[in-house]
Amino acid sequence: MRAVVPYCVEEPKTRLSPLLDADERASFARTMLADVLAAVEGAGGRPEVLATAPVDVGVDRPVVVDDRPLSAAVNAALEERSVGEAPVAVVMADLALATPDALAGLFGAEGDVVLAPGRGGGTNALVCRHPEFRVDYHGVSYRDHREVCAAVGADAAVVDSYRLGTDVDDPADLAEVLLHADGRAADWLRERGFAVAADGGRVRVRRE
Amino acid sequence: MRAVVPYCVEEPKTRLSPLLDADERASFARTMLADVLAAVEGAGGRPEVLATAPVDVGVDRPVVVDDRPLSAAVNAALEERSVGEAPVAVVMADLALATPDALAGLFGAEGDVVLAPGRGGGTNALVCRHPEFRVDYHGVSYRDHREVCAAVGADAAVVDSYRLGTDVDDPADLAEVLLHADGRAADWLRERGFAVAADGGRVRVRRE
Repeated sequence: MRAVVPYCVEEPKTRLSPLLDADERASFARTMLADVLAAVEGAGGRPEVLATAPVDVGVDRPVVVDDRPLSAAVNAALEERSVGEAPVAVVMADLALATPDALAGLFGAEGDVVLAPGRGGGTNALVCRHPEFRVDYHGVSYRDHREVCAAVGADAAVVDSYRLGTDVDDPADLAEVLLHADGRAADWLRERGFAVAADGGRVRVRRE
Repeated sequence: MRAVVPYCVEEPKTRLSPLLDADERASFARTMLADVLAAVEGAGGRPEVLATAPVDVGVDRPVVVDDRPLSAAVNAALEERSVGEAPVAVVMADLALATPDALAGLFGAEGDVVLAPGRGGGTNALVCRHPEFRVDYHGVSYRDHREVCAAVGADAAVVDSYRLGTDVDDPADLAEVLLHADGRAADWLRERGFAVAADGGRVRVRRE
């Protein structure tokens, strides 16, 4: 399955600025992207980076540059698909916990549109097999995408995955990477001194 | 499968105090408990409430009172099991997103110990089939439970479930209930005026 992986080249992961400087955030974001691309391939997908600007993703994968906002760029990819027959997946580039198994569950699920919800109402990954479905990532996208499905008569399915539900945006999310991922992003954090710590009942990351 | 559902009667869900007063928190906690008990039964489990004090759970289900701390009380239940043969599950009472399908996935997974991780290093649900496995919910319990498995020679398996990974502790978690649950807890919130709102890109709950 063709799998579009949107990637914002400019100032990625600004909410990690309490812990990482701008260069580190860019490096960490590219590392998560590499993990996601590998997981997509491991699930039998053909990843295609949809970047806001030219970017060296460090591996030999197609990169399409589209500097429009996220939803517009993804919808262009869906429109292109809708003249064909094949399904297309959209997988966010910060799913550092994604594994081939988790993505195979998404790719293999039946439904005109299959959604993998993310924490806080997001849509972390999806599969589209319906010609009229379009995305809107602004706001409560999971709810909105279900409404879009209803409006265009598409059967919506939902996959239940902690790994796909965990996008890495906030400092607390780094603990999820350290606890549950074993790819490049987890190594990247460990090499820079990050570790999980229990602090009065709450789990956080510390940097040595 | 026998499924122990620990329930803290005294001052439950204190982290929801910015949104709910003490009586509301107690009522909401009991409502989530009722949803969890129903989901366990829907998955073919036999739920048993392990409460810190006598409590009316509103339905005809066995309640065992044990006023020791959580880990000690759960370990007493596991020790009781270890003289028998049958597996025992431990399912937290605040998994308002749990469905029969999600719990059936846990109950049916192979492994001496099966863990359903929760956000922040927690262990939201587990199945124990090994006589020496014991719990320790303090700190980073997911990591600790894997170490306990290694120490006693138990095969550890992990289920990948967003629904089981979402325990309801913080105000932000109420949005998860409203977006993804359709049981009593979601109704309880809606009846009291809670709704999901997108606020500058972040999703939160508001109360009318």
